[in-house]
Amino acid sequence: MNAVPEEVLRARAYLSRVAEPPAPGLAELVAEIGPVRAAERVRRGELGERAAAETSARRSVERAEADLRAAAAAGVRLLTPEHPDWPAAPLADLAACGVGDLAPPVALWVRGPGHLAALCARAAGVVGARAATAYGLHVAGEFGAGLAGTGHTVVSGAAIGIDGAAHRGALGVAGPTVAVLACGADRAYPAAHQGLLARIAETGLVVSEYPPGSVPARHRFLVRNRLIAGLSAATVVVEAGLRSGATRTATDAATLGRPVLAVPGPVTSGVSAGCHRLVRDGAVLVTRVEEVLEELGPIGAHLAADPPGARLALDALDPVGRLVHDALPAREAREVGWLAREAGVPVGAVRVALVDLERRGMVDHRDGRWQLRPQHLRAGG
Amino acid sequence: MNAVPEEVLRARAYLSRVAEPPAPGLAELVAEIGPVRAAERVRRGELGERAAAETSARRSVERAEADLRAAAAAGVRLLTPEHPDWPAAPLADLAACGVGDLAPPVALWVRGPGHLAALCARAAGVVGARAATAYGLHVAGEFGAGLAGTGHTVVSGAAIGIDGAAHRGALGVAGPTVAVLACGADRAYPAAHQGLLARIAETGLVVSEYPPGSVPARHRFLVRNRLIAGLSAATVVVEAGLRSGATRTATDAATLGRPVLAVPGPVTSGVSAGCHRLVRDGAVLVTRVEEVLEELGPIGAHLAADPPGARLALDALDPVGRLVHDALPAREAREVGWLAREAGVPVGAVRVALVDLERRGMVDHRDGRWQLRPQHLRAGG
Repeated sequence: MNAVPEEVLRARAYLSRVAEPPAPGLAELVAEIGPVRAAERVRRGELGERAAAETSARRSVERAEADLRAAAAAGVRLLTPEHPDWPAAPLADLAACGVGDLAPPVALWVRGPGHLAALCARAAGVVGARAATAYGLHVAGEFGAGLAGTGHTVVSGAAIGIDGAAHRGALGVAGPTVAVLACGADRAYPAAHQGLLARIAETGLVVSEYPPGSVPARHRFLVRNRLIAGLSAATVVVEAGLRSGATRTATDAATLGRPVLAVPGPVTSGVSAGCHRLVRDGAVLVTRVEEVLEELGPIGAHLAADPPGARLALDALDPVGRLVHDALPAREAREVGWLAREAGVPVGAVRVALVDLERRGMVDHRDGRWQLRPQHLRAGG
Repeated sequence: MNAVPEEVLRARAYLSRVAEPPAPGLAELVAEIGPVRAAERVRRGELGERAAAETSARRSVERAEADLRAAAAAGVRLLTPEHPDWPAAPLADLAACGVGDLAPPVALWVRGPGHLAALCARAAGVVGARAATAYGLHVAGEFGAGLAGTGHTVVSGAAIGIDGAAHRGALGVAGPTVAVLACGADRAYPAAHQGLLARIAETGLVVSEYPPGSVPARHRFLVRNRLIAGLSAATVVVEAGLRSGATRTATDAATLGRPVLAVPGPVTSGVSAGCHRLVRDGAVLVTRVEEVLEELGPIGAHLAADPPGARLALDALDPVGRLVHDALPAREAREVGWLAREAGVPVGAVRVALVDLERRGMVDHRDGRWQLRPQHLRAGG
């Protein structure tokens, strides 16, 4: 199931612990020379100024194998950009926006059966205040259920209040939901949400960029918020104080060029003040799930064209695999003979390449015809 | 105090009853040839198609003098565009927008000590649902008090619900407020607001374009709303259903190019649905009086440049009066000698002209210096 070489996994596991996110210098280095060489360079301290500063404190911490073992014991696996489940397109904007605070994660530790790329192909963040009102909890539950009921993944932070209500709304209709944590994916935080996190891990996915056992340090909640924004096509703020984590998530979403939606409430309610401020600053006011769906647009419409992550996956192909991949049209299924002609590759070699592409999760086949998986759709040819 | 010739008053009183507002054909005719000649033409039926259609049913109803007497008996006076209290600049957009449904009134019947032009120099409409919630009533009262407390006139429709709360908020801080009725200004409608209307008439102004005794026919509420929008620099909708009178007032304000502001509320509240729709359509979301004040801008900023009504007032001046008026700079007070030189008119004639201009309410003097009244400020020279 996991086609990523052990060497790459171990390098990413090491890198995942060696720098406190966000680590833009490290992210850039990895994008440039790949995880294995990047890990070697970090260990040797042969780094530019920024990456050196990010990694100097922990570069001798060699816990990759221990972390992978601890993760496995807790049902957590390490998802890396080399894996077909990696949400490359949704996260592409984190690197592309050029804002260091929004640097992409070097890997994600995930718990649950969900395929993250597929879950993020149509996903909305639903976030808000811990000290929510009964009104806010009601709306968050309705939105969670309404989004999940129409096949959209509800991404949130599993916090008490709005986050929890949104997850529960999704679970209530047996819909997809993803919790992004500010601590290790093996931990149950907040403790009161141990049951909720267990339920999410049964059908959806619990996600964290922090290695197993990491504590929910205060600053990690804000850092984590960029991943909620990044994994979501749009972010809905249900209730939020003026300066709150949820408005920070909204700011991150706006920086990434994603729509920010806000639910109004009484002007006399402090936890609606952040939502009203967002609307006054340009967020879209939403009152019903249908209005959220309008902003989400057609499935996958938010995915960046030819994102870096997708390119990484293509770079891993051999030349024939690449030719066959590029021959597949954007939205149609084709037979092997047609692909052989189009790619200029013998039929036998096309068959071998297609099996490899399928193993990598990049193509599907049905009735003897092959097509690209949605998250691998290219724009512009 | 009232410098308008009897002949003009009687003509306007006749015209005020001869057509059911809005009467764009009649408004155009009066603007073209003046009220006295227009009244003659209406009586004789010498009219274009549109004005004829508007006036044919009632052109033989000769009740001008009776109406003026009945009005006087009820403490109501007829305010016409020839009077300095006429809010020419605020109402200029009604004619200028070219939308027949928003045609300007031919005259206004007013009850109370207020000077309408002065009251409208800094005025905000505060409107909303009859079936308001306790929340809406609270916000309307706060906004009414906050606006009136900063010297802004609260314009509304005296209806049960939001309107009443806005008026009461203004009265509570002894601030200025104007009620625009859909029936005669001598009537107390709604009956439950007899006391409220009496209080408004004591310090502010009760206004109607309908002659004394007119009943509050259903369609008149929507027609009346254009005057609330027209007399206000901006219109605030506090609570409103999706298709309501208040959202109609907001639409009128938008058509007139005036800011539309809306107060959010719970998405579960039907009487906030109209407000949310307005925000989604481009209205400014406001949560506090300060945010309303921001949209109102500096005093008089909303007044149209050189509006038709102001021109009417100037047309009534004799040539020397016009020269002296035009010599007065926009925002400075000047001595008679300076004005004589600037206007090229002997000092004695300037003094006579200034007394006339003061009588017309177009200039003020203090410490031997004269200046234009704010509502007579010209733009562009």
